[in-house]
Parts: sequence; structure tokens; C-alpha cells
Amino acid sequence: MANKKLRIIPIGGLGEIGKNMTVLEYGRNMILVDCGVMFPESDMYGIDLVLPQFDYVVQNQDQLRGIVLTHGHMDHIGGLPYLMRQIKTTIYGTGLTIGMVKRQLEEGKVIQQANLQVVQEKSSFQLGPFKISLFPVAHSIPGSVGLVIDTPVGTVVHTGDYKLDETPAGGQTTDLKRLKKLTPNGVLALLADSTNADRPGRTPTERVVSDELDRLFAEAKNGRIIIATFASLLARLQEIINLAQKHGRKVALTGRSLVENVELARDLGYLKIPNGLLVDIDSRVPDKKLLILSTGSQGEPRSSLNRMAQGEHRQIQVKKGDTIIISGGTIPGNEEEVGRMLNKLFERGANVIYGKLANIHVSGHGSRDEMQIMLETVKPRYFIPVHGETRHLHLHARIAESMGMSSKNVFILNNGATWSSDGEKAWLDKPIPAVDVLVDGRLVGEVGAMVMQDRQRLSQDGFIVALIPVNSRNKLVGEPEIISRGFVQTNGSTDLLQAACKEIKQYFKHGTNVAHDNVRDMLQNFFFRETQSRPVVLPSIIRV
Amino acid sequence: MANKKLRIIPIGGLGEIGKNMTVLEYGRNMILVDCGVMFPESDMYGIDLVLPQFDYVVQNQDQLRGIVLTHGHMDHIGGLPYLMRQIKTTIYGTGLTIGMVKRQLEEGKVIQQANLQVVQEKSSFQLGPFKISLFPVAHSIPGSVGLVIDTPVGTVVHTGDYKLDETPAGGQTTDLKRLKKLTPNGVLALLADSTNADRPGRTPTERVVSDELDRLFAEAKNGRIIIATFASLLARLQEIINLAQKHGRKVALTGRSLVENVELARDLGYLKIPNGLLVDIDSRVPDKKLLILSTGSQGEPRSSLNRMAQGEHRQIQVKKGDTIIISGGTIPGNEEEVGRMLNKLFERGANVIYGKLANIHVSGHGSRDEMQIMLETVKPRYFIPVHGETRHLHLHARIAESMGMSSKNVFILNNGATWSSDGEKAWLDKPIPAVDVLVDGRLVGEVGAMVMQDRQRLSQDGFIVALIPVNSRNKLVGEPEIISRGFVQTNGSTDLLQAACKEIKQYFKHGTNVAHDNVRDMLQNFFFRETQSRPVVLPSIIRV
Repeated sequence: MANKKLRIIPIGGLGEIGKNMTVLEYGRNMILVDCGVMFPESDMYGIDLVLPQFDYVVQNQDQLRGIVLTHGHMDHIGGLPYLMRQIKTTIYGTGLTIGMVKRQLEEGKVIQQANLQVVQEKSSFQLGPFKISLFPVAHSIPGSVGLVIDTPVGTVVHTGDYKLDETPAGGQTTDLKRLKKLTPNGVLALLADSTNADRPGRTPTERVVSDELDRLFAEAKNGRIIIATFASLLARLQEIINLAQKHGRKVALTGRSLVENVELARDLGYLKIPNGLLVDIDSRVPDKKLLILSTGSQGEPRSSLNRMAQGEHRQIQVKKGDTIIISGGTIPGNEEEVGRMLNKLFERGANVIYGKLANIHVSGHGSRDEMQIMLETVKPRYFIPVHGETRHLHLHARIAESMGMSSKNVFILNNGATWSSDGEKAWLDKPIPAVDVLVDGRLVGEVGAMVMQDRQRLSQDGFIVALIPVNSRNKLVGEPEIISRGFVQTNGSTDLLQAACKEIKQYFKHGTNVAHDNVRDMLQNFFFRETQSRPVVLPSIIRV
Repeated sequence: MANKKLRIIPIGGLGEIGKNMTVLEYGRNMILVDCGVMFPESDMYGIDLVLPQFDYVVQNQDQLRGIVLTHGHMDHIGGLPYLMRQIKTTIYGTGLTIGMVKRQLEEGKVIQQANLQVVQEKSSFQLGPFKISLFPVAHSIPGSVGLVIDTPVGTVVHTGDYKLDETPAGGQTTDLKRLKKLTPNGVLALLADSTNADRPGRTPTERVVSDELDRLFAEAKNGRIIIATFASLLARLQEIINLAQKHGRKVALTGRSLVENVELARDLGYLKIPNGLLVDIDSRVPDKKLLILSTGSQGEPRSSLNRMAQGEHRQIQVKKGDTIIISGGTIPGNEEEVGRMLNKLFERGANVIYGKLANIHVSGHGSRDEMQIMLETVKPRYFIPVHGETRHLHLHARIAESMGMSSKNVFILNNGATWSSDGEKAWLDKPIPAVDVLVDGRLVGEVGAMVMQDRQRLSQDGFIVALIPVNSRNKLVGEPEIISRGFVQTNGSTDLLQAACKEIKQYFKHGTNVAHDNVRDMLQNFFFRETQSRPVVLPSIIRV
């Protein structure tokens, strides 16, 4: 009896945008929905990626019946190469999603751990006690689906990322009819995308973007067109390719992820490119017949567009007459990098179109009115907003409450929370550990809070290591030496460092307490007094 | 004859938003327009402020006839406490501006260096060969003016910060009629604010904000209202005070800069507050009768609102029922900090209204249509867009060109460029040095590019100092010791550091070349091989 309950445990994606991952359990059966990564916030110094904490899944892998993926974006699949180092299982997804996962797992050298299963966008399949049925959703990558999961105690709906665009790129709308048909007996719990819960109204249709691009292409006249977008916005890429064809331009690609994604999506039939349209980046196509599709909408230092901005791109020199279009929103935290890149592109004489200057980007996530329609369609007994920072979850919850849901039936959860239900009541059991796991180069999880604090401090004021040679009676037996980086300019600061050495000598002459911590405090006080800065101070007392 | 030319030298504010400062010279006469600071970008690790480079002004101070200020915001006056350490001069500005400067100079203990002169918003005065006439402009602080500067070779117009709001807070519109009347003989050069050159249309009027706040105040019902805004948006503060009065709420202030600014502006008659409306933050006013005005719209760590979010504010505990309104745009680079603060405020149960959820902020700068109107009004022979990053300057320039100005007459300058004119022609002379001067604690200008690079690297991967005791024949005479911070967790990484010590021993056993740089390279390679990270590596070879 104790096992006759459903448990839903978000391991990632709550209180954050990224690393989406949810556990569903019934008895001794577990499935996962998605397994994403998060890109680090700008105060996560030196961190390449953030993973969900996999411990609970790894410990219970004998109960795992499979992983179901909603779509092929990194915040939904990017954790798999790391998880699959530790487990073996079957992974289910639509064609493009599985294609992208396959490439990821091959690069991570863990492909042999996974049994990859392609499922159709309107299929159903059974994983232990869970019956999974997919319904197509409109999002910025083809093959995106939401999930209806029938469990012994009731039906759970997980929207994945979606919007209710009625004229989306690629034509795939969110199939609310199928969703309705799949849930004839009502829905126990809805987990729904909260990303845009602070945007009023509806997200504009992708149609707006293609109309605007059409207009801009016509205005570009005899110059080249260079468009930067996310390599993963495959629906947008299809629009751009169609428009290039219409305007008689060949398309050249630059940027590794873009080239790879286009090839993959084309091979799998998700991207339709007329023969002869794609040309090599080195081809001698006249400017007025050329469109260059590039990565770098976020100003990433090594991206193609940023290399063009810096004058470091091997094949492309930006020049007067070029029209450069940034067709991708700026992810919070990237504003300064994007701004610097734009400045450089303008300096090179290009006509750069970005941000509010034209309607060249729309979000792939639904806004507040769409969230309301989803809630009306599903009419869940319980509602768990997912995919969002805390503010988005709260605002999404309030939409539900404003529609008459009792706040007792709306659960704003943290990662690791264990939502449990017997099909009637719902409650929270003891949470599981679900913290951020930081990836730094080859180090996974080894860089913790203390290192991050040190990096923060080092970034502000640098460090001072003081080498102090003493004899067994703690008397100085030579000149102290100071090693420093990131504190003050070495040239201009010789006086300061000499004064510090003098201070050390004084201290060892008079000081009776020459324990490491006392020497450190003495030096910290000295430097703060002199500069009002607090470098990391590490005395090294060397006994000779 | 060689001196019969006008020189305009922007020392700050071009290619950046902030530290606005312009030199005008004729013969041996110099005046300055504004003297601002810039807040550091997020990759300026550990930097508190950025100043313009004052060298040219200091070297030529015998020619300086005075400093004219357009308004009292920090990006126009914040550099004065630093400049006035090095020179003595007269500073001209309207009442509130001079009031704010006075406080700044007193805090910087340089008030005796300055002769402060209050001038009326429609006055004229002579500084050497320059006749300065002010015209009122609408901006987000009262007492803002633009400048008409008559010189022997022609008239220069400097807009300062402005927008063409026809129903601004405080009622001061931009007086284009006076501007027109002050320039009967045409304008040689226009220097105009480019901040919003990437925003189409017109900046919405402040009236939109007060209407929306009015509505939100009514909806707040029995709870407290907490509004965060910039302490310097004095026009907005006036609106909020008027609305508080209308809705029967007392106003309490929290945040040092806010308290100081309100007091100053009220004393000088720029802020009208009915007697009895202001109450102490500790007063026992019922929630429904209280409005709290707070600093912290940018999520600054020590600001009042952020302390409330963290639960660390001494007098105010945020609770369910509170309506919190963030009435200030987010400065690029602050998005993540603001986001985190909002999350915490939601967690405490408040109804938080921010960003696009309501029209609660408008910019103080005019948008593209307003720039066009300014250009039409002034019809300058030469145009120098100022106050903006490179992209803004270019976009502003193109507005002028689209109106028929020849691109030869539009000058997109860098800081330090020397624009020269004899009243007919205009050309660029040799530029002067005008780089960023970094302020870090008490250190002004001592922290340079090398230190910034080191901080960047330390922030990413930390450092390793290896103490290697050798004898006179470069043989190891003891155990190497490694000191490290910010690299990897010390517990989990003992193995790695021990392996590094082993590597050092091997190297000194076999290595013939034990010069410092070779040892460093060897260790750098070792750590990169093991971790794919590049900590700063500093071997210290100790001869004993």
C-alpha cells in the first residue's frame, strides 16, 4: 500500500532557467523526463557548465525504465553525456531529438551505454506502469513534444517547452486537441513551462519574424546579408533558407555547431534545403547573391560573428555594404558581450540590425495568455509550474490562482522536492539532494563553494603570498619575499610591497605571536589600511 | 592666426555610456562641459569606478575658464571630487546640480578648491571667449539644461541628456523655442545625446508611469507599498510623493543616497513634499497607510531593497500582502543580480511588479524620432553624436544622414579626438590621451591592464604557488610545497597536488634546465593535462 503512490521529483529546472530534469516514480519504477544542462551565471567564475545532481538516479538505476525527451535543446538533453557515464538505459525521443542525442553521446564516448529509440510525434508507449503519449508542440526546434503520462493513480501532463503560435516556422502547432483527447478522465497534475510568466499577452508568431526578414532582405540590395542566430533555432533556420531562395541568394554557413546541426537536421528530413542552395564559405558568389548564416548571436568570444567583429575570421571580412542581422534574443547576462560585438561590427561599416530596431526575434516560449489557455485546456487538479526562476514560478502560479485554483493545489517547488500523490491527496515527502554540479574543464563536481568564493575574492583584489624564512626560534633569517598577482601594478607598487616587507620584519622583531593566522591578519590589516582593498593574503613561513 | 580655431575634445562619453566630459578650446582658453564617472562593466574585476583621464586638463589648467554642468547625475558630475584634487576652478550649474556637487566635493574633502556658481535655467554668462546660454531640457532630474555656446568662429550646441517629453514629471519640457531663439545665426556644431539611438519612435512620457502607478496604488488595497527607484530619478520621486498624498499614504525613506537626495532637493525647492507626509521608517503607520520609498532597483548587494530580499533589513520585513514595485530600468550587466533579488522577494510572499508586467519605468533619454526633431531644430553644419557606445553613435549619425546631411559633416569620434574648426571647415587634429582611469578602493589609476588580465585569469582557474627549496647546485633539498586558492577543492584534490609535487621532484632529478620559466611551463602543462584548466602558476625557487 505504501508504494501505491506517485512521486514527482524535479531534479533541475526549478528556480532556474536550464538543466531541466524530472523524475517520476511509482512503486519500484522510475522514469526521467529530460536531462539538461545549464549555462553558468556570470558569477560562476571559470565554470563551463552546470549539471543536475544525478546521485538519486544513479543510486536507483535498477528501477529506471527509461528516459523520455521532449526536444533536442541543450537545456533538455545536454546532461546525458554525463549521466550516461554512470548508467545504462533506453532513451526515447522524436527523430531530430534522438539524432542530436546520438551526436552528443558519441562525442562523450558513451554511446554504447544508451539504447536510443526514435518515437513518432503522436505515438504512445509503455514504460513499466507509465503509459507515455506524446503530443506535438510549437517551439523553436522541430520535433518538440509535450507528454501525457498515464500512471496508476492518474494522468500527469508535462508540457515541455511550448508556445501556442498558430503560424509557427515549420508549421508545427501545439496540438491541444490531441492533448484533450489523451486526457478523457481529467488530469491529476500539470507541469508547465514558466519561462515567460512575466510577459503579458501572447508571444508574437514566428510569422512576424519571417515578414520582417523578407523586408530586410529586400533592403539589403547589392550587399551581403549576414545573419546570426542560435544554431539550435532550427525552425528559424528553415525560414531563413526559404527567404534566401526567394531572394535569389546562396547560403553559406559558418560556425561549427551550425554546420553540424544543419547537416543533421537535413539528413533526418527536418530541414528542407533545395539542392545547390548551400555553398562553401570560400565560394566566389557575388555579394548580392550571398547570405551568410552564422553562429554568435550571444557575442560568445570564439563564435563566428564575434571573430568577424574582431577581424579574426579566416574567410569573412565585414565591410561597408554588409547587412548584419542578429536574429536571436540576448540571454540575460550576455548583454555586455553582445554590445561590444555590435560596436565592433558598426566600426567596420556594416549596417547592423539588432534588438528593437526590427522585429527579428520572438521567443520560443508562450507568454501569460498562452499559459492561461494551457491551464484551461488541461484543468488539472494539481499544478506544478516548472522551467523557470522562482519569480516565474510564482507568477505562473498566480495565473492559475486568478483562474480559481486553490493555492493549496498549486505547488511551487524547489529542485529535489518530492511531490507525492495517491490520486486524491497530494503532499510533499522528504526532499532528495539536488544541488548544482559544476563542470570546470575535466573536473565534474570537484569545484565547490569554497573554490568559487576564492575565485570571487581573487577576481576582486588578487593575492599576496609572503615567503618568510625563519629559524627554529621564529627569528627571520633572510629577506621576506612577496609574490603577488592581480593586486596592484607591479611597477607602481614596488614601494607598497617593500613597505609590506618592512612591516613583516618589524613584526618578527617585536611580535611574540608569529603563528600563521596572526601573520596573515597583520598583513591583511596592513594592505587594507594602505589600499582599502582585501587581497587574499597567504603567508608562508619557511623554516630553514 | 593658428589659434583662430575652435577645438572640441570629448574626453569621456564616446564609445561608452558614462563619464561624460568635453573640452572646448579657443586660443589659450579652455572650458569643460560636465565631468562624470562611469560604473564598471562586469569584466572590470574589483573596480569601483571609472574616471576620464584628466591629464590634459591638469596640464593646461592655467587656461581653464571654468566647468559648466548640464545636470546632477553621477555620469555628469561624479568625476569632480577626483579632478578637483588636482585643480582649482569655478563650477557653474543650476541650483540642484550645484547642490549635489557641493555634497560630493565636501565628501571628497576638496570643497575649498572649487568656486561654486549657481546659474538660472535660462541664463547666459561669459567664460573667456565663450558665451554660455542655457536652455531647460526634460530629463529625469530637475534643473537639467542644454548649452548654447557662442564662440568666435560659430555657435556650438550641446544637448546634455534630454528627451522631448511633453508631459514630463515636474513639468519641465525641453525648451526648443529658446534653443531656436539662441541660435539666430545657425549652428556650427551640434553635440547630441545618443543613448537611445537604437530605440525606434519616441520615449513614452513620464505621464504613462504616473498613471500606471496610480492604478497599482489603488490595487494595493490594505498592504504596504514598497517602491524602489534610482535615488537620482528625482522627477520620479516627485510623482510618487504626489500619488502617496493622493492615496492617503505616508512616505518613509530607506537607503542613504535616497534620504540625502530627498533632503537636498527639498531644501533647494526642487522637491515639494507636504508637511507631515514624510515619516520615520520606524513609525507605527498601519500598512494600508504606508508607502516605503527605497533604493535598490539594480539589485545592488548593500541596497535597501536587496537587504529586504535577503531578510537583512533592520526595520523592514517583507511579507505577504506587500506590493513591491521596481520603478527603474535594469542597467545592462545588472540583469542577473536584479533577477536574484526579485526571486527572493517573491519567496517572501510579496506581490512584485517589475519589467514588462506594467509600465512603471520610462527612459530619461529621447528615442530616434526625438533625435530627428533635435537635428531638424538645430540644423547644424557639423554633427558630433555624443553620450553613447559606438553602435549608438553610428545609429545616431545615420539618422542625420537619412535627413540629408553629408556623411563628411558627421563626425563619429573616439574619446580624445580633437575636432577642430575655423568656422568654415572642420578637421581632426592629433588626438590627446583619454583612456579609462580605474578606481579600486584608494588606488586611482594604479590598477592597469596587466592587473585586470591577472584578475580575469585568477577568477577563472585560481592560482598555484609552488615553493621549491634547492641548493646552490639546483638540487632539491626538501619537499616542494604547494599553495593554492581558487583552483580545485583542497580536500578532493590532495592527490592532484601530491602528483604535482612528484612531478616537480622528477623534473629536478632529471631536468637540466631549472630556470624559473621552464619550471613554470612544466607545471602549467602538468595541470592542463590533468584538468584542462589553466591556473596562474608561480614557482618560487628558494635557495637555502
